[in-house]
Amino acid sequence: MTEGTAVQTPAPAAPRGRRGRRTVDVPDLVGRARDGDARAVARLISLVEDASPALREVAAALAPHTGTAQVLGLTGSPGVGKSTTTTALVRAFRAQGRRVGVLAVDPSSPFSGGALLGDRVRMQDHAGDSGVYIRSMASRGHLGGLAWATPQALRVLDAAGCDVVLVETVGVGQSELEIASLADTTLVLMAPGMGDGIQAAKAGILEVADLFVVNKADRDGAQQTVRDLRYMQSLGGRFDEPGHWRPPIVKTVAAREKDNGIDEVLEKIEAHREWLESSGEGHRRRTERAAREIEAIAVATLRERLGDVHGSAALSTLAEKVVAGETDPFSAADELVGQL
Amino acid sequence: MTEGTAVQTPAPAAPRGRRGRRTVDVPDLVGRARDGDARAVARLISLVEDASPALREVAAALAPHTGTAQVLGLTGSPGVGKSTTTTALVRAFRAQGRRVGVLAVDPSSPFSGGALLGDRVRMQDHAGDSGVYIRSMASRGHLGGLAWATPQALRVLDAAGCDVVLVETVGVGQSELEIASLADTTLVLMAPGMGDGIQAAKAGILEVADLFVVNKADRDGAQQTVRDLRYMQSLGGRFDEPGHWRPPIVKTVAAREKDNGIDEVLEKIEAHREWLESSGEGHRRRTERAAREIEAIAVATLRERLGDVHGSAALSTLAEKVVAGETDPFSAADELVGQL
Repeated sequence: MTEGTAVQTPAPAAPRGRRGRRTVDVPDLVGRARDGDARAVARLISLVEDASPALREVAAALAPHTGTAQVLGLTGSPGVGKSTTTTALVRAFRAQGRRVGVLAVDPSSPFSGGALLGDRVRMQDHAGDSGVYIRSMASRGHLGGLAWATPQALRVLDAAGCDVVLVETVGVGQSELEIASLADTTLVLMAPGMGDGIQAAKAGILEVADLFVVNKADRDGAQQTVRDLRYMQSLGGRFDEPGHWRPPIVKTVAAREKDNGIDEVLEKIEAHREWLESSGEGHRRRTERAAREIEAIAVATLRERLGDVHGSAALSTLAEKVVAGETDPFSAADELVGQL
Repeated sequence: MTEGTAVQTPAPAAPRGRRGRRTVDVPDLVGRARDGDARAVARLISLVEDASPALREVAAALAPHTGTAQVLGLTGSPGVGKSTTTTALVRAFRAQGRRVGVLAVDPSSPFSGGALLGDRVRMQDHAGDSGVYIRSMASRGHLGGLAWATPQALRVLDAAGCDVVLVETVGVGQSELEIASLADTTLVLMAPGMGDGIQAAKAGILEVADLFVVNKADRDGAQQTVRDLRYMQSLGGRFDEPGHWRPPIVKTVAAREKDNGIDEVLEKIEAHREWLESSGEGHRRRTERAAREIEAIAVATLRERLGDVHGSAALSTLAEKVVAGETDPFSAADELVGQL
């Protein structure tokens, strides 16, 4: 299963790029990343994650090399077996000789501890395999940070030559769904008896799933979970229209030693990839995602300019007026924007 | 407990303001709302919620009348008894002769069904009381909508003369916490045996709570929940610094017929209100909130302009280039912003 050297991409101890003017040789870094140098990949991800001064140069240098990775999203409630399934998928892709990147996103944890622990567990399975890059992305204070950093980290892994990138998130909220929607193919994991059916309907997970995986299928209630999903699918009749993709439901038992059903998951992923290509939906999705990414960056830039032009003092003055009832927030915002 | 006429503020069947040019007599509407006309309040909330053309006029007309309501945030996981506690608090405030507004925010539900059902249940308790306004705010497609609409609805209730406004949210994610942070005083509800302690630490609820309410305190494990909270508080030593507010922990049994502990909750809310005033923290919070509101509106305005100037065609073209690897998202965003 393994070959080569250890390739855990460690998070840096401190975001150096933000503070100092440490020179970065970006073309050299990108070149080494493309040659499979795990340290170079780690450094590039840190640069984009920390919005370092070199961010734009990095983005420009990566651009010509992006667009080849197959991006898989993997989401599900805590306890459904995301890590085990990720490990099983990585094992299967490696057996096919494909290079794999994993971005493990945990927006629910403001502490990096959980993410780091997760890394250590995973490391044991893929230690010594130079064809696997694993990176944990813990929340840096607010979700906006992750929503920003994850697509950029994805670009790094794509440009570094990963054939497949797995983006693993805890599927509990809207922002997590947004991150999952970076993927070409989104896998939603469930487990029997967790009330996931209702949760799924609530969180809009039915909308984002391209493939349902009912994991722990050796447990009681697995068949019921499958039936619940089928029933919910039957309510959204559009899946039966010609040309539409009807998300298949696969039962798995992902475990350290034996994986049941993972082969079928791979088959369905491949079928979905073919559908994405033949239907044009793949290109549509990638363009839509790029548009949203551009828009988010543009808005962030404008937000920054608002701060630059006025400083917090001007905003404070306007806020005081609003609190005093002398003006309303919309007029205050107009005043702020008007001076841009 | 009740007096006067029924005052449920119904959501409109369709957001008329968005479509037509139906004339709105804003000063008249604001005048009637201030006289306690529930229909006028409902109409104003709809106007701000739907971002109708009259939104800015409404905001300007409301401004001079805002700033008097005491805003209470109430958050907690599903099942801890938020609705019952809200009802008990409303009952207690009404007994003091105070006018009460309730905004029930459920961002987790993309369907309005749940919110409407919640209204019906609550209606039975406060039917016929003209001193209580209840409004359910269900998600309109995305969380940004609620984060936008809730502060505006709050302004309407404030201007309409509510002495207290309760903002009730499901405390599961970052955006819900943001909504809770609209409040002067935020109550975090817990219940024994729900693993809320760990959840609280994860979701940053310890940071936003001004008062912990351990509800269902007649159940096993209530004392353990209190101990867990005390322990977590002890880890964040800053609460013990002089001048700091150490969030008290109150045990309650909120029920339809008898409320145990609600009086103590009211006392602690009052103590917190006094601390907010004496420490200057109250003014600081309101100013900070106004600043964030102004900034959010300014950014939304700029985002709209991006769309106006370029149309989706320009963005699509740039997105296509990014997908093809001809440019990167940052350069594309610069191009978009540069033409503003």
